Amino acid sequence: MNRFSDRVDRARLLMAERGIDGMLLSVGADLPYFTGYEAMATERLTMLVLPVEGDPVLFIPELEAPRVDYRDGMFEVRPWSETEDPIGLVATSVSGWRRALMGDHTWASFVLGIQDRAPGVRFGRASEITGELRMRKDESELDALRRAAHAADRVVERLREVRFAGRTERELSRLIGDMTVEEGHEVAAFGIVASGPNGASPHHEPGDRVIEQGDPVVVDFGGRMDGYFSDTTRNFVVGDPPEGYEEAFAVLLEAQTAAVEAVRPGMTAESIDAVARGVIADAGYGEYFIHRTGHGIGLEVHEHPYIVEGNDLPLEPGMTFSIEPGIYLPGRFGMRIEDIVAVAGDGVERLNRSVRSSVPVQ
Amino acid sequence: MNRFSDRVDRARLLMAERGIDGMLLSVGADLPYFTGYEAMATERLTMLVLPVEGDPVLFIPELEAPRVDYRDGMFEVRPWSETEDPIGLVATSVSGWRRALMGDHTWASFVLGIQDRAPGVRFGRASEITGELRMRKDESELDALRRAAHAADRVVERLREVRFAGRTERELSRLIGDMTVEEGHEVAAFGIVASGPNGASPHHEPGDRVIEQGDPVVVDFGGRMDGYFSDTTRNFVVGDPPEGYEEAFAVLLEAQTAAVEAVRPGMTAESIDAVARGVIADAGYGEYFIHRTGHGIGLEVHEHPYIVEGNDLPLEPGMTFSIEPGIYLPGRFGMRIEDIVAVAGDGVERLNRSVRSSVPVQ
Repeated sequence: MNRFSDRVDRARLLMAERGIDGMLLSVGADLPYFTGYEAMATERLTMLVLPVEGDPVLFIPELEAPRVDYRDGMFEVRPWSETEDPIGLVATSVSGWRRALMGDHTWASFVLGIQDRAPGVRFGRASEITGELRMRKDESELDALRRAAHAADRVVERLREVRFAGRTERELSRLIGDMTVEEGHEVAAFGIVASGPNGASPHHEPGDRVIEQGDPVVVDFGGRMDGYFSDTTRNFVVGDPPEGYEEAFAVLLEAQTAAVEAVRPGMTAESIDAVARGVIADAGYGEYFIHRTGHGIGLEVHEHPYIVEGNDLPLEPGMTFSIEPGIYLPGRFGMRIEDIVAVAGDGVERLNRSVRSSVPVQ
Repeated sequence: MNRFSDRVDRARLLMAERGIDGMLLSVGADLPYFTGYEAMATERLTMLVLPVEGDPVLFIPELEAPRVDYRDGMFEVRPWSETEDPIGLVATSVSGWRRALMGDHTWASFVLGIQDRAPGVRFGRASEITGELRMRKDESELDALRRAAHAADRVVERLREVRFAGRTERELSRLIGDMTVEEGHEVAAFGIVASGPNGASPHHEPGDRVIEQGDPVVVDFGGRMDGYFSDTTRNFVVGDPPEGYEEAFAVLLEAQTAAVEAVRPGMTAESIDAVARGVIADAGYGEYFIHRTGHGIGLEVHEHPYIVEGNDLPLEPGMTFSIEPGIYLPGRFGMRIEDIVAVAGDGVERLNRSVRSSVPVQ
């Protein structure tokens, strides 16, 4: 039995327990989790119909059918031609179903179309089941995440030797992307470079700002390697940091360290968030930490479990997520330290091992 | 009046005519079309609630609020914090609505959540209205598409001097991406490099295959420049092409040329498809042209109008789309020629002007 059919079996057990007739999976990571095949995100529908019993069928645009590895007949492939109606094909194949789950990232245009054509089916979110399965990584998945994290760490090491001053954020972002691929990722997925006051915007889009002397620079990047993602954030400073930077950074480093060290089986996700938030709030920066502490990571950059207030999920060995507190001072600067960690049998494994202090660069 | 508020006004006229109470726009190009702001595709909901009358409200994750240009108060921004429920906020703001349109790419998790919390609202696809508006480009949009196409053309010219043999598809794809950015795109969006027999898979994912002597190579790439996309496909041959390649290529070039020259106001989208398909079928390759002839392009790589059998939309000046017939011989090789064209007052404007013959490379 291969790992794909094993995963399908576990999903079917949960579907049967919960009275669900099947799942419809399109773009996103659920489909590759079960089949190894990832749908292209386009207006042409790719959808796996995975019934609780019976053969799964992958509906796929005819021109993309050559991309599919058929997995020894684990699922049937039904290519549809440009003049066929794929929504009608899917709707027909779920006739008689009453409760079904829809892949969380499926486009609204397909959701609404299928609902119209299969009005007897009530849909929920596939993550009700796939989230539970996917957040518990097996050893081969942990290995893939380790390899990706270490590749990202090598990029950080190389960045210490790069000249920051005089480059635009966009140029530096592109360079980091190249390094991310050179170090073994299939693809660079994102590369935030937020310099000077732009660092106060956690999801800043790298732009034409030229990095200059005295700038702190937040670098948050990652890529996909053997299907699994890296995601790390480090902080660089060109010359002397602005007033107040070092004090805030010391608080942030303490908060991130404390949160990582708090991770162990049985702790809740929200309790890890509370550890980081407590350190930052106690030092007077509470209002400047404007996001949760972390997110799960695996076949997607963001997935369950989320390390956020209100999530009382107890951590288990094999769960992997980011710990990434930040402090953002509008108009001045920002900072964030992010590592990927794995819950271990007796504590925590930090997958990223590159320098966490702020790094002086030219 | 800026172009954004003008677009909102036109959408509202159509909504009023059709009895629609409002639109909910999230990821995808509709939101930037109306506001200039593009939502990040994440599990944190960004959504513009655009009622047929009254002020639009943009619900956005608090940590992304610093990214937004408020457009002089054209819309209200409502940041939600990590412990708030954005689906509830949106559902409350549509209470009393009966018919609404949902952005086509909105994630199923949000669609299903909002449907649950706003059970009195019946949803359709936003493209019912936005597709009509967006497929008719104004002069500034046409200019942006021209600039992007010409930047892509410069990449093609540079590729003539690049050594193909000995590189992997993935390496060449990354190099093309770098050139796409160097020539002025904000971002390289995709870069198919399909060598040898891989060329027979139209949407081949560039992999570890090393390009070698005798390989035809299909290169299909594009990026985003000032918000608008380029998308062009060219064909390179390392050394002597395989048997049958040149004969098929002559047919393809004739088909692509004929289809481009057939474009003029009043012709239907499907009639352009029929022109390309007719040339290829008459030469005996009909079964190897396994996709439509083209797709609209603008703020998205693929948008209306689609150049496909069954689409009887009459072309109008200002519509922009690809003309990209292909011939795919499984196990042997493939080929595709793709230009972006604009319907002009009296015919067609070809935006891409790089060489369309197959290009010999080393």
